[in-house]
Amino acid sequence: MAPNVEKTAAELETMSISPFGTARATINEKPLSEEEVRKMNNYFRATMYLCLGMIYLKENPLLQEPLSLNHIKRRLLGHWGSDAGQSFTWIHMNRLIKKYDLDAIFISGPGHGAPAVLSNSYLEGVYSEVYPDKSEDIEGMRRFFKQFSFPGGIGSHATPETPGSLHEGGELGYSISHAFGTVFDHPDLISVTMVGDGEAETGPLATSWHSTKFLNPITDGAVLPVLHLNGYKINNPTILARISHEEIEALFVGYGWTPYFVEGSDLPTMHQAMASTMERCITEIKGYQKQARESGKAFRPRWPMIVLRTPKGWTGPRKIGDHFNEGFWRAHQVPIPDVASNKSHLKILEDWMRSYEPEKLFDKSGALIPELKALAPSGVRRMSANPVANGGILRRKLHMPDFRTYATEVKKSGVTNVGSMALFATLLRDIVKKNPNHFRVFGPDETESNKLGAIYEAGKKVWLGEYFEEDADGGNLVTEGRVMEMLSEHTCEGWLEGYILSGRHGFLNSYEPFIHIIDSMVNQHCKWLEKCLEVEWRVKVASLNILLTATVWRQDHNGFTHQDPGFLDVVANKSPEVVRIYLPPDANCLLSVADHCLRSANYVNVIVADKQDHLQYLDMEQAIAHCTKGLGIWDWASNEQGEEPDVVMACCGDVPTHESLAATALLRQHLPQLKIRFVNVVDLFKLIPEKEHPHGLSDREWRAIFTDDKPVIFNFHSYPWLIHRLTYKRKGQHNLHVRGYKEKGNIDTPLELAIRNETDRFSLAIDAIDRLPVLGNTGAAAREALLNEQIKARNYAFHEGIDPEELRAWVWPF
Amino acid sequence: MAPNVEKTAAELETMSISPFGTARATINEKPLSEEEVRKMNNYFRATMYLCLGMIYLKENPLLQEPLSLNHIKRRLLGHWGSDAGQSFTWIHMNRLIKKYDLDAIFISGPGHGAPAVLSNSYLEGVYSEVYPDKSEDIEGMRRFFKQFSFPGGIGSHATPETPGSLHEGGELGYSISHAFGTVFDHPDLISVTMVGDGEAETGPLATSWHSTKFLNPITDGAVLPVLHLNGYKINNPTILARISHEEIEALFVGYGWTPYFVEGSDLPTMHQAMASTMERCITEIKGYQKQARESGKAFRPRWPMIVLRTPKGWTGPRKIGDHFNEGFWRAHQVPIPDVASNKSHLKILEDWMRSYEPEKLFDKSGALIPELKALAPSGVRRMSANPVANGGILRRKLHMPDFRTYATEVKKSGVTNVGSMALFATLLRDIVKKNPNHFRVFGPDETESNKLGAIYEAGKKVWLGEYFEEDADGGNLVTEGRVMEMLSEHTCEGWLEGYILSGRHGFLNSYEPFIHIIDSMVNQHCKWLEKCLEVEWRVKVASLNILLTATVWRQDHNGFTHQDPGFLDVVANKSPEVVRIYLPPDANCLLSVADHCLRSANYVNVIVADKQDHLQYLDMEQAIAHCTKGLGIWDWASNEQGEEPDVVMACCGDVPTHESLAATALLRQHLPQLKIRFVNVVDLFKLIPEKEHPHGLSDREWRAIFTDDKPVIFNFHSYPWLIHRLTYKRKGQHNLHVRGYKEKGNIDTPLELAIRNETDRFSLAIDAIDRLPVLGNTGAAAREALLNEQIKARNYAFHEGIDPEELRAWVWPF
Repeated sequence: MAPNVEKTAAELETMSISPFGTARATINEKPLSEEEVRKMNNYFRATMYLCLGMIYLKENPLLQEPLSLNHIKRRLLGHWGSDAGQSFTWIHMNRLIKKYDLDAIFISGPGHGAPAVLSNSYLEGVYSEVYPDKSEDIEGMRRFFKQFSFPGGIGSHATPETPGSLHEGGELGYSISHAFGTVFDHPDLISVTMVGDGEAETGPLATSWHSTKFLNPITDGAVLPVLHLNGYKINNPTILARISHEEIEALFVGYGWTPYFVEGSDLPTMHQAMASTMERCITEIKGYQKQARESGKAFRPRWPMIVLRTPKGWTGPRKIGDHFNEGFWRAHQVPIPDVASNKSHLKILEDWMRSYEPEKLFDKSGALIPELKALAPSGVRRMSANPVANGGILRRKLHMPDFRTYATEVKKSGVTNVGSMALFATLLRDIVKKNPNHFRVFGPDETESNKLGAIYEAGKKVWLGEYFEEDADGGNLVTEGRVMEMLSEHTCEGWLEGYILSGRHGFLNSYEPFIHIIDSMVNQHCKWLEKCLEVEWRVKVASLNILLTATVWRQDHNGFTHQDPGFLDVVANKSPEVVRIYLPPDANCLLSVADHCLRSANYVNVIVADKQDHLQYLDMEQAIAHCTKGLGIWDWASNEQGEEPDVVMACCGDVPTHESLAATALLRQHLPQLKIRFVNVVDLFKLIPEKEHPHGLSDREWRAIFTDDKPVIFNFHSYPWLIHRLTYKRKGQHNLHVRGYKEKGNIDTPLELAIRNETDRFSLAIDAIDRLPVLGNTGAAAREALLNEQIKARNYAFHEGIDPEELRAWVWPF
Repeated sequence: MAPNVEKTAAELETMSISPFGTARATINEKPLSEEEVRKMNNYFRATMYLCLGMIYLKENPLLQEPLSLNHIKRRLLGHWGSDAGQSFTWIHMNRLIKKYDLDAIFISGPGHGAPAVLSNSYLEGVYSEVYPDKSEDIEGMRRFFKQFSFPGGIGSHATPETPGSLHEGGELGYSISHAFGTVFDHPDLISVTMVGDGEAETGPLATSWHSTKFLNPITDGAVLPVLHLNGYKINNPTILARISHEEIEALFVGYGWTPYFVEGSDLPTMHQAMASTMERCITEIKGYQKQARESGKAFRPRWPMIVLRTPKGWTGPRKIGDHFNEGFWRAHQVPIPDVASNKSHLKILEDWMRSYEPEKLFDKSGALIPELKALAPSGVRRMSANPVANGGILRRKLHMPDFRTYATEVKKSGVTNVGSMALFATLLRDIVKKNPNHFRVFGPDETESNKLGAIYEAGKKVWLGEYFEEDADGGNLVTEGRVMEMLSEHTCEGWLEGYILSGRHGFLNSYEPFIHIIDSMVNQHCKWLEKCLEVEWRVKVASLNILLTATVWRQDHNGFTHQDPGFLDVVANKSPEVVRIYLPPDANCLLSVADHCLRSANYVNVIVADKQDHLQYLDMEQAIAHCTKGLGIWDWASNEQGEEPDVVMACCGDVPTHESLAATALLRQHLPQLKIRFVNVVDLFKLIPEKEHPHGLSDREWRAIFTDDKPVIFNFHSYPWLIHRLTYKRKGQHNLHVRGYKEKGNIDTPLELAIRNETDRFSLAIDAIDRLPVLGNTGAAAREALLNEQIKARNYAFHEGIDPEELRAWVWPF
């Protein structure tokens, strides 16, 4: 082995940023024998051959015949550009897994290079174990090739069908946050994470490097990022591949990492550089972990990472005709797209494929030769077979205390004021207590502000940054905790996804208005979950639970920017198999709903509940019954017993329920002859027809609650149109009069905000009267009186800057 | 002046990261006389006094009487934590604006510290000019205080009501991208941008630092970021305030900046440090600009920035009782929240306010004393009065070529195949040509892939990174161009917002599935625009134009993750005053719609159009007429002339139109007796009632097109429920049968994807038959035939991996 020569910072600064040439690396050792280099390189060539085969071939997989157009797929699809760098990294990790018996997974940030992941899975035998028709022989290989980017087959990203993948990479930016999620509370796991330099330009990825400030080297595993300076996106150079060595090194030192460079295109020297560098990283990781674990003192080392600079489309032709290919963006997808129309290009492709010498890598039957087969780890040590990447296998049941014991006493509905969230926090606290290493709570900066602070009694906030004296004054920071807070909804959500996809349980709490920041991440997670349902070997994972609080109706003081309840519209568009939305009206309902969500699997559950004190309506038994039904008539608030009502007052959401009840009380006071039915909805998807969502009501059930022909005044938490979208098929939908947030708001009191959107008690009561012309003069008089009360309250609020006391102190009067 | 002593890197590394103490700075000069320090500090104290006044007082603004609860607002709201640092920065910029006659604006990233911005605007006299009742006297000051965070008043962020603001900071993360947007093509402008260290943790902010790779020092101005290490978020320390000096310095060197540190709490030394540092930054900026402009050679300097570390709630009490306040998160919002219930705390507040000695800063009438007044710049040099921040003032008309001259010839509908996008690109190219310095095109990486490459003939892609030899091979990179591409939807959108808010025009193109990444940014921009409509002195800015392409129906090969047309649902929830959605069915319609959007002001316009070749239907005159109406009956595709139809075939979107036409043709072939009306919708909001959107149809107009009682088979581009949400009030909505994307997809051909979602020609034709039982046996026979054709086509697609030729070559047969 050559002496260890590390490059100095000054030497690094002068290094070229070209991806071509002999290996240039921070660590310059030669840990591999020539024989090892030869074998590893042959293995690498085998994967490259498979990648090209996937993109091009439907027949003649081993090129045992001269290549003709009959062998080529009619529509060419797939991504070649990052395959080589990814496969190169995978193979080098294999060596270290075997050498050190590592527990590792591979996260493919640029999932668009799925052929790299797929080819390694196939060579390791996992693909054939999981999909027996894709056997390790010629016919299996042919099927393996043909299915790729082919109708009814698999995609060009590391989709759920891909063994060993828990990260698709279809939408870019989440590889590092997902990776950290997988290693929290998995102290022996190393997640090798390939980060594309395109992906690295996204916001979510750019901030996720800071995750190291939340990683405990004693209780958590490690992420080994490999930033792949592949050089190009679809049609542009990447920023990080076109800045100086000094800047790129400084950037990652600044992010808190120790970057090791491996750069070049010359294969023999690159293998030595990668082998020595990766081994250095693994050794450092193990060293830091040992130091922390033996001393019992957690600290934040500057964790190692690799910057791998190789040409895009590495090992392909540098030029095709007059145009650059390898080392340019033309290698991004199908590297030679016109083989069907250009015979000489077909020949170039054939020569290129044959240059990997498939006949020397696979035997006549199509199986990888034993000398190469021996290079991969075996059993669950194969990264494509690690159960962490099929996390449902590892999922342990969450130990749940009996939520009923946390109930708030409700002797009479609408009398006591309780903070639902603070109560819920005590349940969460005890779940944290009972599940010290497979449950975490995530949120941008708001666990305390969202009144969930009781959790800290069982598990405080993880913090591996520096500490100041004032932190002792209620800072709740620890190196080993259960609450994860960083002011990046993207990172919190990504951590949580990684945490549950690798077999654990968790919970995200966020301000409602800013949850739109992660619309796209939630969309992608829903899609992942739905596809998993179609993949037989995938075991269900815990649900992704999102609590939205600091809701629109109490964002009066923060103004218009903080008022957006539209996340529900985004979620409602996803597949009914995977989404659930709950709006509990009070604390006991919140407890019941949360218990249900935390026990469930494979859903995205959204719970919307305000954090302020609210009137309580249902005792625990009533709450359980109500939440189990998902919606129902509240007899105690209705006066139509046994008869058809004149009007249905319906509501969904805690603040809307409060106002609907107040409206009902006003109506009963002003118009005691009116027969009112009061309906509350907890489970939003109850409203949809049964054929369209498993929770949906049949038309018969719908009619029994809402009637077919009576006016329904429906007060909704979010934009009113969502209710119409869910109910447009119902008979009587013309009678459904929905109020909700209509994008009217500024700095207002809660009352004023409600009045502007017509969701306040007065407007609702007036709405009912307006839909009952039969009331005649009595109705008109009541209407007039209600209008005067509204004006009076409004004037008070305007002058005093707060809502009138009598409104806040309101209780159910019957 | 003391000699210039710069700290070395080694000295920096050993510096404390405490925010307290004598100033510690990279530059240690003393440019200010003692008299200047005294005056500037008094000005600073005046702003601090005003900030507290805004948060607390409704009466007794100058504390001419002892402070009592009657003077205090009943509900205390507002943000104190970052006020001091922001105001400090503003005041120091004022000195340099005067000294160097600078054209500058102030962007408040942590908009939550709006009192800093508001107080400076008030002291500069701008607030009183804009809002005469907030005059520079005691009564004006009282009103100025009372309105803050008070119902009917203004918010605690730098909202549209704030003079000098074009960035609210309600949702965090966009200050730097907005700032860069303002300085592109504004060569003399300096945008001083305060970045909160909370905000700095967000993904969008973290990547936006790379914007320097897209800034040309000759044609663009400069951004001077001031990263405010304020130390805390609502309830947590910030990451960047708790890492070592070495790391924070390295991070910004890595991002491509030269960070200058100003740290401490001791006011006299902090004033000297800030004055010298800020002056150094301005000098460097001017120097780089001079060098580039004189040489004519654009380059990327490592632009200067300031890292300002001060205690959160600086100048407030360090402790209140046993609890830390200054320098801790308790200073985030109202620093002493319980003055109403705690008399001693009221006294602390009074003493604190009096410690600023308001009686020495303001005269008896309540006006700032002349010696301090003289410190601010005058006229439009005041940052609160710079017209850039009310960009509509500066907006020049976009020079538009006559879009009709770009028309594609359509002699017969449904015959010719044309790429709408490529055609549109020629119009865009000429707009770029005619508007060389106030129009830019933005997009993550896809201008070429979206077939808009013709733009490069007039303006290529801006790139200030390193260049390689292969860039000459179609790289289209230049230092001075018109197309802005970075793989961050957040940054592109932020740049565009900043560009139009400061008076220019622009255009964003993006893949449809990933536009959800910026849901939240678009929401916030809509809210900004809507509030601006209520602010009299705000002049309208150009619309934010978003082109969505690479749409769901042609994302078959990229699979499920790339299929999400739901952005329209998000947009449709925003105020009808500011949102417009167009789905042109062909190229001439796209030209007409785009022309309209680019000429419009104060909207968010969303245009959805596929990038592949499509059949063309309307010649230019027809297209203009159709787009002007927004929807209409296509007589050439209908056969109900003059009579009531049996069925209405309706559609919205280019691919859906194609399938609906094919379905209509199939129906007319199989069931020639059927009277079919064909309707196409371009302007989505036509569907909504006229009361709910200015574009909405009256019920009479609706009936004339869709009928009240005939089945309508509506093929929609996006999720079908959006159509129901828009039309639920229409009579006959029960007859409306909408097809659209239902979250069914994987790797499929376009046909298979359509079949899975029932939007293909066969399914649509069968839908129509199923709703016409009157057809009897004839209908049943046609249904059977259509089903067989569908199965045949499906089988072909499955085996060959492409759709059958006859489907792709389809033309309108009548």
